[in-house]
Amino acid sequence: MTRIVNVALGQLGPVQKADSRASVVRRLCAMMREAHSLGADVIVYPELALTTFFPRWYIEDVAELHRYYERSMPNADTQPLFDLARTLGIGFYLGYAELAEEGAALVQYNTAILVDRTGSIVGKYRKIHVPGHFEHEPWRQFQHLEKRYFTPGKSFDVYQAFGGTVGMALCNDRRWAESYRVMALQGAEMIFIGYNTPVHNAPAPQHDDLSLFHNQLSVQAGAYQNGCWVASVAKGGVEEGVDSIAGSLLVAPSGEVVARCVTKGDEVVLGRADLDFCAVYKRTTFNFDLHRHPECYGLITQKKGETLAADGTPWSASH
Amino acid sequence: MTRIVNVALGQLGPVQKADSRASVVRRLCAMMREAHSLGADVIVYPELALTTFFPRWYIEDVAELHRYYERSMPNADTQPLFDLARTLGIGFYLGYAELAEEGAALVQYNTAILVDRTGSIVGKYRKIHVPGHFEHEPWRQFQHLEKRYFTPGKSFDVYQAFGGTVGMALCNDRRWAESYRVMALQGAEMIFIGYNTPVHNAPAPQHDDLSLFHNQLSVQAGAYQNGCWVASVAKGGVEEGVDSIAGSLLVAPSGEVVARCVTKGDEVVLGRADLDFCAVYKRTTFNFDLHRHPECYGLITQKKGETLAADGTPWSASH
Repeated sequence: MTRIVNVALGQLGPVQKADSRASVVRRLCAMMREAHSLGADVIVYPELALTTFFPRWYIEDVAELHRYYERSMPNADTQPLFDLARTLGIGFYLGYAELAEEGAALVQYNTAILVDRTGSIVGKYRKIHVPGHFEHEPWRQFQHLEKRYFTPGKSFDVYQAFGGTVGMALCNDRRWAESYRVMALQGAEMIFIGYNTPVHNAPAPQHDDLSLFHNQLSVQAGAYQNGCWVASVAKGGVEEGVDSIAGSLLVAPSGEVVARCVTKGDEVVLGRADLDFCAVYKRTTFNFDLHRHPECYGLITQKKGETLAADGTPWSASH
Repeated sequence: MTRIVNVALGQLGPVQKADSRASVVRRLCAMMREAHSLGADVIVYPELALTTFFPRWYIEDVAELHRYYERSMPNADTQPLFDLARTLGIGFYLGYAELAEEGAALVQYNTAILVDRTGSIVGKYRKIHVPGHFEHEPWRQFQHLEKRYFTPGKSFDVYQAFGGTVGMALCNDRRWAESYRVMALQGAEMIFIGYNTPVHNAPAPQHDDLSLFHNQLSVQAGAYQNGCWVASVAKGGVEEGVDSIAGSLLVAPSGEVVARCVTKGDEVVLGRADLDFCAVYKRTTFNFDLHRHPECYGLITQKKGETLAADGTPWSASH
């Protein structure tokens, strides 16, 4: 059995507020056809791919807010994407805002699904490392209200798909080494990540010039240190006046970038991922069974943070 | 109070088997004087700095083996380094093989110490992620018997020194994200790491060409994802016929390399580390209190590895 997966990076350019889901799905379908023509087995789309990145706005009206969420998947707007996947025999990863009925409550998640070659959903992930802030902060040029609009998910899981073990994460998860490790401890060989990353980071504008570097550094380290393939795909470009980084990547278990998008718009790039190549790292330098020391890692799960700065205040205190 | 620490990378070239400790200490002292002349507050020396990297040999005779270890620190050979530190008012980090009396047993550790400006030892670290193998493997061009010669340490600790919170690690620890995280959860602002990394990795020769890349990637990711300064210092060059990478680095909390050695020999390079710069990361993107989710990280401490490859065998099985 071959263990080579042809992975298409399905980078999306901006999605404006006025763009209908149907128009976005047409773009996604066009990219899926292009990916298929290149021989792709799976195409990775970004986080919140179906709408504009609405956490940039403080939205008080719940009905207005909930228009950005999907109540079911597939639904009338996205069914064509699932149909095309089945017709072409190509899988996909797609990020979207999910409104889930949990008993009497409607719970909002930042979600990604994994769809196999038959158009069936085989896995769902709800974003854990939800970034940004909870309260309206009018001093910012634009908001980043993910903490207000999304409840964190509960677990990083893996799925058997495309001949290997596949994990999913979303955006800010990629900066946290724990994300990759928890999936690698379940045998992950390939991890799909979608993201929306504004170039401007209001609380830390010093980071703006380093945004693409930090993106690549985090994905390379996660891939190398876990012997995994990682496909990390952006929605980039200027959306509603806010510029976001693009820079979608496929990174090998060696940490090397093997495929990269070079525009800030809709762009399909194919990379070839040999899942058996993971063993070169998982059986040697990163052989967890031989080399990890969980007995020394207690603090990682025992505490959240609570570290103090030099002046004795917690890092989380406002300054 | 200023929180700028002038850190000297004290990279060492090869130490051959015939080189006496006294001769090595003379080299370390010369480098310390150079560091002082550059305005250094502290100089970081490599792992196992006092001897050649003896785990490359299978040594059956315990008396012969134990000649590579220090039974006390300081001792007659290393006292001049402590004296010079006190005279110059400069601190240091030094790696060496330690033979510790524990009850009736002699226990072997791969150890580093942190010495302050008064020449006093203020911290000791014993290497946790001991790499290599336990049994003699004659098929290798040279051995890497660290697992045979060193008992793993028990904890990553931090110390108050040089106006900030300082942690220590050794060599292979730098490839494991847990090392940095456990220290950052204790408030580490600066981490010192010494290493010896042969260019050739016998079980995975495919990595050889990437060795410097992996070194830099791991240190940059550890620094960025924890908002820490990291000084990582090599013993490099050809020792007893075995070539080791050099590439000593000082990396900022931004992940940027701010100082770098460019030879494979004895080389002192100064970098300027503003500990207050950590807050730019620790209070924003990597504000642990706001953004970590320990409730989702359970596997990191619950299991060592035990992941299965595609053929159902553990990754650790020999193939």
